[in-house]
Amino acid sequence: MSTGAVQAVVDLGGDPVVRVLERVERRMSELAGEYGPLLARHAGETIAAGGKRLRPLLVCLAAGVPPPETDGLVRAAVAVELVHGATLVHDDVLDGSPLRRGRPSVLAAGGRGVATATGDLLFSRAFAELAGAGSVDAVRVLSRAACELAQGELLQRADVFAAQVSVERYLERCRLKTGVLFRAACELGALESGRADLVLGAFGERIGLAFQLLDDVLDISGPPERTGKPRGADLLDGTVTLPLILARERDPALGALDLRALEGPATMAEVCDRIAATGALEEATARALELVSSAKLTLPPLPGSQRAALELVADGVVERYS
Amino acid sequence: MSTGAVQAVVDLGGDPVVRVLERVERRMSELAGEYGPLLARHAGETIAAGGKRLRPLLVCLAAGVPPPETDGLVRAAVAVELVHGATLVHDDVLDGSPLRRGRPSVLAAGGRGVATATGDLLFSRAFAELAGAGSVDAVRVLSRAACELAQGELLQRADVFAAQVSVERYLERCRLKTGVLFRAACELGALESGRADLVLGAFGERIGLAFQLLDDVLDISGPPERTGKPRGADLLDGTVTLPLILARERDPALGALDLRALEGPATMAEVCDRIAATGALEEATARALELVSSAKLTLPPLPGSQRAALELVADGVVERYS
Repeated sequence: MSTGAVQAVVDLGGDPVVRVLERVERRMSELAGEYGPLLARHAGETIAAGGKRLRPLLVCLAAGVPPPETDGLVRAAVAVELVHGATLVHDDVLDGSPLRRGRPSVLAAGGRGVATATGDLLFSRAFAELAGAGSVDAVRVLSRAACELAQGELLQRADVFAAQVSVERYLERCRLKTGVLFRAACELGALESGRADLVLGAFGERIGLAFQLLDDVLDISGPPERTGKPRGADLLDGTVTLPLILARERDPALGALDLRALEGPATMAEVCDRIAATGALEEATARALELVSSAKLTLPPLPGSQRAALELVADGVVERYS
Repeated sequence: MSTGAVQAVVDLGGDPVVRVLERVERRMSELAGEYGPLLARHAGETIAAGGKRLRPLLVCLAAGVPPPETDGLVRAAVAVELVHGATLVHDDVLDGSPLRRGRPSVLAAGGRGVATATGDLLFSRAFAELAGAGSVDAVRVLSRAACELAQGELLQRADVFAAQVSVERYLERCRLKTGVLFRAACELGALESGRADLVLGAFGERIGLAFQLLDDVLDISGPPERTGKPRGADLLDGTVTLPLILARERDPALGALDLRALEGPATMAEVCDRIAATGALEEATARALELVSSAKLTLPPLPGSQRAALELVADGVVERYS
């Protein structure tokens, strides 16, 4: 989702959304400084490095437009973003990634041990943050999501360099790796609205899925100037994503391709071109768009401004690709 | 603490303690099977591999003797043990350890990625387990401890191969790495007893500290047949512990020793002998015994059987060394 799209949503939500998101940033800055430079330098830098704060925005909008400006809402938004940050730090350890958001990853800056422990600290801090607001239901939602995130990572490891991955299995991996935290963001917001009947989880999960599908398309399509990493970086790590799964059915040479045997950016660029030539990128994109449409259909009856804001977020996920 | 000492405590606590610990084991087995073999084989094996379950025992005894046989108590004991298991799995990633409790570590069996994600799963599962019992105070206690465990790991990384580590800094690291989870175990038990006035955290923290000090003595003294690892394994990883800190002040050759330059078991055995020759092992042991004594002194007024059981646990920590 582009910064512009986020801004459009914030504009629609008005001053209360702005104020909640500002409080989220302030709270993140406080946490970043909390443990001092020795023990949490990298945790602090991870928190401060930002990102689009898409998940905190979802927490906020799911609670209502205008959102209730409560301590609990701010803490829930912070907790979701901390869990997200923890998974990024650990992902970089698993993938050996030197860069994150254009800066050295914690892995590169501090080494494997520091990065593993920093992720653990961010994870733990997330639960401490939620518990501080006193809602055990919120802890239940986030801990379930965190379990599923770890399972998604394990599923990805189990399928690394696999010659055959079904579409269903790929979608389940995306659900676990990305969908469940978007779901949790929506559920936490709904909890904080005091309307336990608000069923926004399915909406969140679907746009999270769409987000991951489009991210996987971008990995193949690039261009590198836009994504900040060479084309096919995920494939090089052995992560088989939807474009390759679809392209394998259409191009026998890709069907026989051994990802382990690939070397260097030149070869990978050729593979990416070959995947693109099958039309797999368009089909994967179409699937993501369908998910966004169906996400909107799952929305329960909502006040007009809240519905409009959530639909804008859904569209923003797509806009990211166009 | 030896299996015999654990048994003595259990005998003193009678059938209710036995029943609670059996329920803890059953619940752990259930969790081990919960996610199926693909996604949680290693998590399940870690849980099932056992250990002395010292922390669950503390949760149980801190709640009372006889303990209340509640779902919340069982869940609290399980959650503490899951966090402990998560830290062991991640520790093995950080240290590159091939063995854990005499069996292949998750790192050795599944690789770094699987081990990192398995630790994350155990962590998350711990909070889900606690949240299931509905006590946000319990989540607060455990999340604070989990944050401090990660900080302890970071402190250890910061001091790796350090030429100078003060005794104070070493003790702070031990508090963070080991003391805080013993503290949390006692606090969780006290919470479940319904007596919020029970101040057992300081007791737990001190015996946890003593436990770590004696563990560090064993690393130098061995023998390997007893510890299951070569003497000086921690030193070889660059972890400077109390025996070396004390010995460095007494033996100039040890003061000038560069741990990075050490190679092979023969050299390390010589260094261990040299540390032992300074009397540092006796002093470190004496400090641990003092901690156990002072732990007992912090105990608030308690029913006789509960006091006796907690004192037995404290003595059991020492007995481990003798």
